Formats: sequence, structure tokens, C-alpha cells
Amino acid sequence: MSEKKVSKPCHHCKSRSASVPADTTTIHYEKFWLYRHCSSVEQSHRQAQKAGQLFSGLLAMNVVFLGSAFISSMIFNRVAITLADVWILLSVLKVLCVFWIIYYLMGTRRKPHAVLYRDTHAGHIWVRGAVLLFGSCSILLNVFEIGYSTILVRCKSNVEILFPVVAILFIGTQIYFLWHHSKDCIQVQHNFTRCGLMVAVATNLLEWLLSVTNDTLHMEMESQLREVEERFTGNETALCICPNTTICRVFQKGYILLYPFNTEYSLICSSMLYVIWKNVGRSISHHHSLERRPRFKLKGVLFGPVLGTCAVIIGACVFMMYQIQATSLDPSRQILVIYFTYYIVLLPLMSVCAVVGTIIHALEKKELDTVQNPTRSLDVVLLMSAALGQICMSYFSIVALVASNRRDVLNRLALAYSVLIILQNISQNVFVIDGLHRRHVVAAAEAKHEAKHAGHCEQHTVAAELPGEEEGTQDSVQEHSQTPPAKEEKEEDTKEEQNCEACSQRRMSVLELGQEIRKFSLSYIQTYSRLTWKRRVLREISFFLVLCNIILWIMPTFGSHPLFENGIERSFYGYSTWFVIVNFGLPLAVFYRMHSINGLLEVYVTA
Amino acid sequence: MSEKKVSKPCHHCKSRSASVPADTTTIHYEKFWLYRHCSSVEQSHRQAQKAGQLFSGLLAMNVVFLGSAFISSMIFNRVAITLADVWILLSVLKVLCVFWIIYYLMGTRRKPHAVLYRDTHAGHIWVRGAVLLFGSCSILLNVFEIGYSTILVRCKSNVEILFPVVAILFIGTQIYFLWHHSKDCIQVQHNFTRCGLMVAVATNLLEWLLSVTNDTLHMEMESQLREVEERFTGNETALCICPNTTICRVFQKGYILLYPFNTEYSLICSSMLYVIWKNVGRSISHHHSLERRPRFKLKGVLFGPVLGTCAVIIGACVFMMYQIQATSLDPSRQILVIYFTYYIVLLPLMSVCAVVGTIIHALEKKELDTVQNPTRSLDVVLLMSAALGQICMSYFSIVALVASNRRDVLNRLALAYSVLIILQNISQNVFVIDGLHRRHVVAAAEAKHEAKHAGHCEQHTVAAELPGEEEGTQDSVQEHSQTPPAKEEKEEDTKEEQNCEACSQRRMSVLELGQEIRKFSLSYIQTYSRLTWKRRVLREISFFLVLCNIILWIMPTFGSHPLFENGIERSFYGYSTWFVIVNFGLPLAVFYRMHSINGLLEVYVTA
Repeated sequence: MSEKKVSKPCHHCKSRSASVPADTTTIHYEKFWLYRHCSSVEQSHRQAQKAGQLFSGLLAMNVVFLGSAFISSMIFNRVAITLADVWILLSVLKVLCVFWIIYYLMGTRRKPHAVLYRDTHAGHIWVRGAVLLFGSCSILLNVFEIGYSTILVRCKSNVEILFPVVAILFIGTQIYFLWHHSKDCIQVQHNFTRCGLMVAVATNLLEWLLSVTNDTLHMEMESQLREVEERFTGNETALCICPNTTICRVFQKGYILLYPFNTEYSLICSSMLYVIWKNVGRSISHHHSLERRPRFKLKGVLFGPVLGTCAVIIGACVFMMYQIQATSLDPSRQILVIYFTYYIVLLPLMSVCAVVGTIIHALEKKELDTVQNPTRSLDVVLLMSAALGQICMSYFSIVALVASNRRDVLNRLALAYSVLIILQNISQNVFVIDGLHRRHVVAAAEAKHEAKHAGHCEQHTVAAELPGEEEGTQDSVQEHSQTPPAKEEKEEDTKEEQNCEACSQRRMSVLELGQEIRKFSLSYIQTYSRLTWKRRVLREISFFLVLCNIILWIMPTFGSHPLFENGIERSFYGYSTWFVIVNFGLPLAVFYRMHSINGLLEVYVTA
Repeated sequence: MSEKKVSKPCHHCKSRSASVPADTTTIHYEKFWLYRHCSSVEQSHRQAQKAGQLFSGLLAMNVVFLGSAFISSMIFNRVAITLADVWILLSVLKVLCVFWIIYYLMGTRRKPHAVLYRDTHAGHIWVRGAVLLFGSCSILLNVFEIGYSTILVRCKSNVEILFPVVAILFIGTQIYFLWHHSKDCIQVQHNFTRCGLMVAVATNLLEWLLSVTNDTLHMEMESQLREVEERFTGNETALCICPNTTICRVFQKGYILLYPFNTEYSLICSSMLYVIWKNVGRSISHHHSLERRPRFKLKGVLFGPVLGTCAVIIGACVFMMYQIQATSLDPSRQILVIYFTYYIVLLPLMSVCAVVGTIIHALEKKELDTVQNPTRSLDVVLLMSAALGQICMSYFSIVALVASNRRDVLNRLALAYSVLIILQNISQNVFVIDGLHRRHVVAAAEAKHEAKHAGHCEQHTVAAELPGEEEGTQDSVQEHSQTPPAKEEKEEDTKEEQNCEACSQRRMSVLELGQEIRKFSLSYIQTYSRLTWKRRVLREISFFLVLCNIILWIMPTFGSHPLFENGIERSFYGYSTWFVIVNFGLPLAVFYRMHSINGLLEVYVTA
């Protein structure tokens, strides 16, 4: 723990500690038996890195394939391989991961010079927040499962209570690990760490696969047979029906409500672990580690939040109507029409916003950021590949709708919906990918200015609030056109050092808190009018898109599947084929929405 | 045509023309409306390249998804979408591609400074040879189809004769394009060229998808219903049976025999087109373009070819026995035992060879090649992803075999087969990927030496054959330890220039041809004993693996599918599930073998 604190300096002095260049003698260059005859130690290091990645990647691939085969066998041959077998495999993997994480925290990380650099782009606060939130939901889900099993203990084996306990242990450890160490660039025990990380990635992917297949099976049951209760209790215990007590109902409802979070949790963890894996052995350049990330501020946006909130509220109403109708025994066509109409109004609006945003990006005089950045590369790849799921479903739907050639309203609406979904996905992807590559010049200047302010212990701001703010903006505009000399910065740094400790103590005073609230409300309107119109529009657009994506995430996640329930495609392709297509596309589509939110927030902050 | 000749100089003067540095004013830097505010023209160029790749990639994605939806609809709903609809879509795409290729040859490529660089790594002779061979087979296939349709013209529509004609046109144009222009790095009309290439890639991928789904359907028919004839005539013409004439039989047999080549052809074309697409707008550094590729020589290997040929002959016998047995109405278990035994003997041998090769690579004092090389990157990605198909099938098979828990010989053999396949795939991948990254130092020295010889018009070699050869080898050894000064090289270049024309005329004289044959047979044994043991072992291993992969390619390609026919997994997973798994895995496994041959030949040449 003590070591962790050393590597995490006082918030205000962060930039100073990062600016101390790491001694080159402390760097552990990687070696690999395959590459011993390289001319330079750097080249050998790079090749050893690649080889290490190859071997740990192969390990993960084998684990994933083995697990997939297990899960498929469980689905298609319930006699030979049961759900319990799959759980045993997953529990073994989870225990391995927990051991590795403990070893990492106690052993690897405490070695001298284990973590020289931290990747500022990795593990952003809202990604970690999502892990914390979804992880907590998953723990709650497992608690419900334990409670449910305890009630039905007479017809369930005791082993079934053990699995959720292991799962809780795993999720808890993983949340702790990801919260504190997602930025680490580990410089020791490279290959062991890589293998550990890859086993964790594989475990999370398998957990996701199991959730998805179970979830869709569940969906199928609901829409087809409406015999939730019998099935819910598992495979072997088809006769083990929940007694009609309130607590049992609560467990069941909670399980259904919390289930989607568990699915998303596994995917986010996989992607975060992957970034840590990419960062193993990576040395970040001095300039790069100095770069400070802009903070999320709700200043300077008005129309975006308002319009977005409207979209969310209307969407929530449509969703609730849909859910009430869909769970009734005779779902009417009318609700499908309303559902599709909502999408058909919203999607073109989103597409237009994304296109306008892309055009504004082109008009803006901003440099492109071409520094290596595994987090961003992964974001781009995930955005593109997650969109494939939705686009694939839409194309299948389009062909079915056109070929079946029915001329009614529902058919036309469904067709328009599918076409618009494709357009929206593509335009949004272009907007987000383009935005992620813009360098955050203005905000960087702002951050610098802010650090200066902090160094001066808010003397300026307390004395003359609004003039100080004005000066800051002028300053940032000035810096935008010409960067200040480095010398000045150094002097500032020295001052910062002296004032740092005193300021962190004073900061928490209640007096300032009250002043800051007043300052915030006063400056909000001023900032709004002062931002350049381009930046303002970009922020409005990204905020609006964030809110739209939230509602578009909620609707399919919690049970609206009109593509499955309208029946046109289902009758065209046949039940099982369309089920497989939706089974593949829907989890990706849901993940796409969530991942878009992440990307759009990034664009919002850097705009 | 004339322009093409200008860019393709005399074979012996190749290195000279490549050494003329391209004038920087002739380079067409790419621009893109999205990226206008970059500090440097290079950065803007790079970003424009990325944007162009993104947009053309999106185009291809949409085409592929639309086509996939068409093909799936055709398979699952034969009433609304027929094979004819799919053919119409593909024909439209093919016509578009043909027009683009013609425009490229007539328009784009004739513009000033259209092709300043040529990627020496792209379009290697045996890849182009494979395209030529497989393309010719595909043309023949289409000719058979036309013939077959003409015979049955009374019950087929005339449109069905049109499709093969379009296909022949497309294949012919594409072969010409790939044969002559696969090395081009186009510097004009970047985005139009990218879009053209991507449409061609999408068309080939769809053609592959159609072939694979049709092929596996065909397979299913053969193994299940043995009613080839009725089905063979197509969907709508189930009553249109071929009259019992010889020519009709020939067409049918030829169709079945040539079918696999068509499938492979589409995949190879896609990968070649993808490399050209990656090379659009790429400028290759001077040093890189100077590098001369080593030629394929059969010198210095003995055990590899002998052992490999044995493996091929035995494999061919097993294959024929299998085919005779499998097409009989009552396939015996004995032939499956023989088949699996053959694999179980061969696969460990191959794995051991690959591991030994990897170890020797590590022992060798060779530099690693870290120059950017799209062909190699694609090779690595294709090797890894194609191996996934086989590995996935094997894991599913392992789980099924272990879980079904039957204790007979066939079960154990199948289990060993699956485990060994995984090990062989992984070890071979590591060996090939590692080998592709080794720089070809010794051979480069040899090539230089050869060029010198050519410059001297074989005066040495004709006068004193064996001493000259000896001197050459000594020379190459010397160059290996210390590179000659650049000055000397330049003088040699001047001499080469003077002698070049005279030598190319003299070269073809019959006298020399006879001498060269004598020289070859004499020097073969000498070269064999003179190569260092490491290089020799590497060559033996890669040659052996090439031959093994050839036979392992032939067996599944032409109809042996023991994983499908042994029935264990089929009964475990259920018919349709196992069929889907094999349907996904088998085409990839077949492509993996073919692609491995390519990679191993590369390793052989550079060893």
C-alpha cells in the first residue's frame, strides 16, 4: 500500500512528479530466447515484446476456444456437459485470476522500478466508474443468486452456492485491481504479467459468452413460452419451483433487472485488461506523460442537454409502453409502430448532428494527435467491430423486408428503421473516430492555466473572481496562438512546489466551497457566451448524442427487441436462423451504444 | 502498354533503375477535406490516407453485408430470393470491377507519375502463379457450366448462360490485372482507386462465401443423401436431369474436381487486392526499393524433399483409399482408423520440425527485419486467423470426444488427432511468423554477387567454372562478415550498365544453356556440402513442411472430411450445430494450409 502512495503523488503536484525523467538504468529491457542477436538493445526489447504478446495471446486463444466449446456443448448437449461443468471451468479460471491479481499487488508491483510510467489515457474515470457500478450490480446479482439457492436448498446442490461466492470474490478483486492499477505500465516480470492478464481477459470473455447465450435463451423463453419460473431454476431442477413468497419474487425480478449489467461488466473489464496488457513493458515519452487530461465540465452547453433530455424522456415513455404491451399475452401492432416511429424521428436527427460535427471538425484549426495510444486504438477497433453487429442485423432485415414485399405501414417503418440505423452508426463512428484524433490544444492550455491557479492557491480567484476567470480565458486564447516559453513554466513549477502542501490543506475549507458554488453559477452563463461557436456546437452535439445513446442503450438492454418480436424477419429466415443472427448482433449492438457513450464523452471533453 | 514497359526495365538493370531517387516534386500528396489544418504536408498526407482507407473500407463492408444477407436469404428462404438474384447482384459487381480495372489500365496508370514505386514484397511469383493456375481452373469451371447449361437449354433460362460469361470476363481481367500490377504503389486518384479495389475485394469475398456455402451444401448432399444428380442441376430444375451422355458426365465430374480451385482463387485474389489497397499512396524508401528478393533455388536440400515426398505419396494412397471407401454406400470404420493414424504419425513430425526450426532461428545470428511491409503483416494476420478455424473445430471435437467418454480405438485416435492438430498449427505459425521477420542477409550478399557475375557476362564462369563458383562462395562468406564499401559498388554499377545490353543478347545462346545445365548438376552437390548446417536444416525443414502442407491441403479440399463423417461429434452436438461449426472451420482450415505453403516457401527462400 505504502508503495502505491509513493507512485500516486499529491493531486496538484502530479505534473511535477511526472516531469522527473526516469533513470534509464532502472528500465528493465525485455529479453526473449528467440531474439538474442539484435544489433541494439531497443530492437531486441521490441521483438521480445512482440513475442511475449504472441505467446500470451495464444494462451488466451486456447482458453477461449476451450471455454467456447464447453459452453456450446452445454447448450446443444445438455446431458454430457451441464451448466455445473461450465461453472467449474469458469471458477477454476477465476480462482487463478484472483491468485494472479494478489501476486501482482503483493509481488510484482512491489519490485524496484516495477511501474515507472502510467498511461494517462488508460482507465479514464468514467470507464472506472462504469466498472465500479456494473461490478457492484454483478455482485448484487450473485448475492441474489445465493439467496435464491438458499431458499431452494432442498432441491439444489451445495456446490451451486459455492460458484456465486467465487464469482463475488473474483469481481471484487478485479474491481479493486482495475480501479487502482488500470494505468500501470509494468516494467518487470513481463511475460508472467502478460499471461496473467490474458487469462483474466479470457475469463471475462467466457463469462460474457455464457451471459449472452443464457440471456438470449432467457429472451427466447420469455417471448416464446412464457414459462419463466420453471426454467429459471436451472437445468436439473425443472421441478424445483420457487414458493410464492415475496423474497423469492424480489430475487427473481432483481435477477432479471441486474442481468444486463453483468454482461456489460465482463466486456468493459476485458477491454481494460487488454489495454493494461498492451501497456506491459511500454515506456512513455516524457512529453506524453506530462500531458494532462482535461476534466469533464458541464459548462457551455445548453441545447444539447435540453434536446437530449427530451429524447430520453420520450424514449423512456415509449419503452415503458412497449414493455407493458410486450409482456401482455397479445402484443399489438400499434406499439411496434410507435416504437419504430420514435427511432425514425430520432435517428436522422442524430445522423445529421454527427455529420455537422464532422464538418466542424474539418473547419476547426486543430492539430491531429498522432502519438501512440493503445487506449484510443482499442476504442476505434471496438467501435468499428461493435457496429458490425448492428449493421449486419440491419442488412439482413432490409433484405427480408424488401424481398417479402408486403405493403403495410409496419413493414415500411421497419425498413426505414433498418436503413437509418446503418446511416446513424456509420456517421457516428466517423464523428467519434475523427474527434478522438484531434489534439486537445485549447483544453491543454486551460489545464495549464488551472494548474497555475492552483499553485497560487486561488489567491487571484478569491480576491477577484470574475476578472480572474476572464484573464484565464484571454490567456487561453493567447496560448492558442503562441505557446509560452518553457522557462516561464519551470519557474511556475518551483512556485507550485512551495505552495502545494499549504494549498491542499486550505482547499477543503467550507468557506471556499460556498464561494465556488457561487462562482460556478455566475461563470456558467459567461463561459457559455465566450466559447467559440465551433467548440460550442461540438459540445452541444456530443452531449446530445451521449444522451441519445444512453436511451438507445437502455431500450434493447432491458428487453425491447422489436426486430425479434415483429415477426417479419423471423418468418422470412425461419425461427432458428433469425435467432442466431439476433443472438450475434444484439449483444454487440448493446455494447456499441455503451462504447459510443464513452467515445462521445471523450469528444465532448476535448472539444 | 508502352508505359508499362518503361516502368519495367531490363531484368539485369533493375537495381540501377530502382536506385534513381524519385523527384519529390512528382509525388502527389493526398488531401482530404477533413484534414486541412495540419502543420506539415506529410501529416496531412498520412491522415488523408487513413480517411481514404476508412471510407473505402466502409464501402466494402456495406457491400459485403448486403451480399451476405442476399446469400443467407437464398439459403434459408429459397422462394423470395433465388440463386439467380444472388447471381445478378454478383454480376453487377463483377461488371463494375471490370470497368474499374479497364479504367485503371487505360486512365489512372497512364497519368504522369502514377506509379513511382513498386513494392518488391507484394505479388511474389508463386502467389501470381497460384492466381494464374486457380484462375484458369475457374475459367474452365465456368466453361463447363456454360456447356452443361447449353445441353440442358430446354429446361434452363438463357440468363443462366450469361452469368458464367460475365464470370469468365471478370476472372480473365482480374488475372491480367494481378499478374502485371500487383506490385504497384499508385500515387494518383487515391480515393477512386481505393474504392475500386475495395469493391473488387468485396466481390471476391462474396464469391468465396457463395462458393463455400454451395460447396458445403454439396458436401452435405454427398454424405447424406447421395443424390448428387438431381440436386446438381440447380434449384428450380429439380426435374431437369442430365441425359446419360459422356459429355454431360465429363462436365459434372470436371465441375466437382475444379470447384475447390474456384474457392481458393477468390480468397487469394482478395488478399492480393488488399495488399494493393494498402499500397495506394505509399512511398517506399530508397533503401527498401533497392532490396532484391532472393530467387527460389532447389540447391542444398536433400532429406526434406525425400521425406516430404514420402509423406505425399503415402498421403495420396490414404486419400484414394478413403475416397473409394467413403463414396461406397457402407463406409467402414477401418478407413477412418487408417486416415487418423496417418495424421497422428505425420503431425508430431511436423510439430517437432517446426519447433526445431524455431530454435535454430534463435541460434542464428541474423538481424530482424523491422521495415514496414503490408504483405508480411497481412500474411501474419491471415495465418493466425485462418488457423483459428482449424483450432476452433479441434476444441469442439475434443470436448465432444472427452464428454461422450466412449472407450474405443476410433474415439482415441480422433482425440489424438484433434490435440495434435492444435499443437501443429501453433508450432507452425510461430515458426513461419518468426521466419518471415528474419532479414535475408546472406542471400542478399549472394544476389549482389550474382549481379556482379551477370555484369561480367559470365566470363569467369565460362572460363573456369568451378573455381569461379568457389570464389563466389568465398566472396559471399566474406561479405557476410564485413560489407564492402559503397564506392566499390558504384564502380560495379557503371560496369554493369555498359555490359548490360550486350550480356542480355549473349545470354540466350544455346552454348551457355548447355553449360549451365552441366554447371548446375555439378555445383548442386558442392552447394549442399558448403551451406552452414543451420541454413541447411532450416531449408530441409521448410521444404518438408511445404510438401506436408500440400498433401494436408489436398485431402480436405477434394473431399475427405473425417470430422464430419465419423459421426461422433455429429451425434454429440446434433446434426445442424456440428454442420455449422464444420461449415465455418473447414474452409478456413483449407485456406490455412494453402497460405502456410506460401509462408513456408518464403522461409525456405530467405533461410
